[in-house]
Amino acid sequence: MNNCIDFTFKDTVKFLKKHNNYVILTHASPDGDTLGAGYALYYGLKQLGKSAEVICPEVIPSKYGYFLCETDHVNAKDTVVVAVDVADKRLLGALEQEFGNIVDLCIDHHISNVRYSKALYLDADASATCEIIYELLCALKIKFNDTIAKALYTGISTDTGCFKYSCVTAKTHIIAAKLYDYNIEADDINKVMFDTKSKKLLTLERMVLDTAEYHFDDKCMMITITADMQEKTGCSGTDLEGLTNISRCVEGVLAGVTIKQTGDHTYKASLRTYAPLNASQICQALGGGGHKNAAGASLCGSLDEVKTKILAAIKQNMEETNAGSFVTE
Amino acid sequence: MNNCIDFTFKDTVKFLKKHNNYVILTHASPDGDTLGAGYALYYGLKQLGKSAEVICPEVIPSKYGYFLCETDHVNAKDTVVVAVDVADKRLLGALEQEFGNIVDLCIDHHISNVRYSKALYLDADASATCEIIYELLCALKIKFNDTIAKALYTGISTDTGCFKYSCVTAKTHIIAAKLYDYNIEADDINKVMFDTKSKKLLTLERMVLDTAEYHFDDKCMMITITADMQEKTGCSGTDLEGLTNISRCVEGVLAGVTIKQTGDHTYKASLRTYAPLNASQICQALGGGGHKNAAGASLCGSLDEVKTKILAAIKQNMEETNAGSFVTE
Repeated sequence: MNNCIDFTFKDTVKFLKKHNNYVILTHASPDGDTLGAGYALYYGLKQLGKSAEVICPEVIPSKYGYFLCETDHVNAKDTVVVAVDVADKRLLGALEQEFGNIVDLCIDHHISNVRYSKALYLDADASATCEIIYELLCALKIKFNDTIAKALYTGISTDTGCFKYSCVTAKTHIIAAKLYDYNIEADDINKVMFDTKSKKLLTLERMVLDTAEYHFDDKCMMITITADMQEKTGCSGTDLEGLTNISRCVEGVLAGVTIKQTGDHTYKASLRTYAPLNASQICQALGGGGHKNAAGASLCGSLDEVKTKILAAIKQNMEETNAGSFVTE
Repeated sequence: MNNCIDFTFKDTVKFLKKHNNYVILTHASPDGDTLGAGYALYYGLKQLGKSAEVICPEVIPSKYGYFLCETDHVNAKDTVVVAVDVADKRLLGALEQEFGNIVDLCIDHHISNVRYSKALYLDADASATCEIIYELLCALKIKFNDTIAKALYTGISTDTGCFKYSCVTAKTHIIAAKLYDYNIEADDINKVMFDTKSKKLLTLERMVLDTAEYHFDDKCMMITITADMQEKTGCSGTDLEGLTNISRCVEGVLAGVTIKQTGDHTYKASLRTYAPLNASQICQALGGGGHKNAAGASLCGSLDEVKTKILAAIKQNMEETNAGSFVTE
């Protein structure tokens, strides 16, 4: 939308000082960054004597419990709505209808932000929205404590793959160092966020590895999670999220495909690619979409038919991008 | 050994200024920290106009190539021998016989260092030996460049699981932030170190997952890499490093054991623990050593005998620490 006003850092600080009643919105499929940002902002506003409420469109996974709390119920006339880490009003999920068009301020780090809010403070250089909230809380002279520090650390750590990705800057590490002044128990946080697998997931992983197949001179790896495996291990839904990473870690693989059975003759393909391949283009050819490195599509047919369709789409993209002759070492 | 002199930071700086010819030793099964420390120290000494040679007991894996170089050949009479990240002369492997008893200075962060060298600069609070080398190079007024920064970042990142583990401090992050002043391409380094697996390793992983066994109410998980598996998949040496992480990721597991067959009747156990268990104590009981969260030991016997010994040592530590009643959720 064109009416969205760009806020500077100072405008944002001023806004947060000025108002007295806040509704803070997180995005659906809540992750560490949107939740960490929402709750850290909440704790900050409370210190300033404001009323504030955090609303998440979905049930918050219990693993984030260590920085959550019961927030206020805010319904004053002069309530302002702040969305954190929400790049598009559609990402508000169940809250879109009520709040989608009345977000007063969005605080975000996604360059892809579609400017749906009345005002936007966007810092696309920030590795996480929690990096921005850290700086805002400093400017607001908030007294940090263990809980605020844990919330912010969680957002930064989870959005950067624990400081692994290209979005990390010197500033990210400097903020992390400051958060270590508090008792954040970072190793415990990271263990929960990155290094915890259930026994049943490990069993599923073993089954899935058995399905591994390689194509196009090992430039494509494909794994399958059948309904039968999901049933046998009792794994479903978000349990399966991490499995898509298996196929993108294999040396030389440019296209990692994870096929998940969703019904008798329905499958969901998740694609992870490296340049020159383009996951978004491949999945568009299959009726899906996504980012250039990570995309997905839903497909119908037998497993063999689905595999054939996916391989054909990858082959086309390999030809178009000349990836067949691409040297991966 | 009792004759080992404890060096302060200042003593160490003085030592590195004083001498002119250095042999720098890394440990066997070279990892990012010993190599990063060895080469960063080498580049620093070269800037000071010294002669220096880095000697690694084994072929260095090619993935570290971005910070390696051809070093000098040093055989002057007044050559001093410096070991970096080498907690025990036995870890010098093939170099032990030649150098084991003539290490002039050991620079290390392992609390378990057995004090085999004539002098020891030990900073057990450092997350990595590369953290110590960073500070030494600063004190020596070395001009940092991309290669030195990459070497040090590699050591810190790999020894901390990319800033994940409990050994990380505010200082670790501050040093990382400083290293970002250089073009370290941290995301590329981390992809190679953490997110790249060979096809053969993935095959081995599947085999290893088949060996998973659980003990003590699922508080201990044990996996085995037999010689047969190594032969069948063609995986060996450093290929196997990452596998030790499998057993520490399972929900509720306090002791993750990876048993690697090293000969007909010889095995190496790698242990990863969470509080209240202490990997160092457990491995000491088995004749080995290491850190409180990560340690190892070499054992002789049949696989069953080895497993029995390890389980007995874990059981003892569980009893001593009351871990049996420890609630992990």
